[in-house]
Amino acid sequence: MSTIFSKIAAGEIPSYKVAETADYYAFLDINPLAEGHTLVIPRNVEKDYVFDLDDDTYAGLWAFAKKVAVALGRAVPCKRVGVAVLGMEVPHTHIHLVPLNSEADLDFRKQKLELTPEEFARIAESIATEYGKLQ
Amino acid sequence: MSTIFSKIAAGEIPSYKVAETADYYAFLDINPLAEGHTLVIPRNVEKDYVFDLDDDTYAGLWAFAKKVAVALGRAVPCKRVGVAVLGMEVPHTHIHLVPLNSEADLDFRKQKLELTPEEFARIAESIATEYGKLQ
Repeated sequence: MSTIFSKIAAGEIPSYKVAETADYYAFLDINPLAEGHTLVIPRNVEKDYVFDLDDDTYAGLWAFAKKVAVALGRAVPCKRVGVAVLGMEVPHTHIHLVPLNSEADLDFRKQKLELTPEEFARIAESIATEYGKLQ
Repeated sequence: MSTIFSKIAAGEIPSYKVAETADYYAFLDINPLAEGHTLVIPRNVEKDYVFDLDDDTYAGLWAFAKKVAVALGRAVPCKRVGVAVLGMEVPHTHIHLVPLNSEADLDFRKQKLELTPEEFARIAESIATEYGKLQ
């Protein structure tokens, strides 16, 4: 059975795509903690716990996340791009990349931002543009 | 100038060591969010932002963190070992590994646990023992 994230990576469910490779996919969280909050996932590996990934998939995921984070940090003004992996929501490993201006910004219980489709699309495109410059 | 974390990794400042390699060091956070809350750092690279690490140091850090997380998950009862990188406190890249039973457990604003030196030592030893079994 495919997870919702596998369907997103396959294009069966729409998402605001930020970057992709043959094995990994990055897209905007639609319940963002901050503008530019991005999820990074392995495309075809439906392990729900990051530390259950095989070593190669795990290493590739973090390498991809680094490039996405660099692009995100250039596209969205912030002090740092924070990282979180909780793994309690969707049963498909995903790394949260969250633009931070203070530690308190990485708080998953706080009220999520509400953005319009146009805002999501604009943010995703700006990150994708920066990602493209890294190639 | 050495950071406090470089001094910890060098043994110049005491810590509750969990695991180490030639290049990386893991020890208990003394202001833990949960029992077993561990910090994972590169030993001799004093970049304060994880995404500024060179690719090899970055990859090695995440590979080491995976082993530490597996050991931590075996030593400390929890649903998941969560991951966070905030990078706003000590200016030396560090990954937080936090045993989680719910998403709310990864909240850096919540009251920290107060443990005795004996409790810290016992927890560190139990994680180190599990880490040793992974070699």
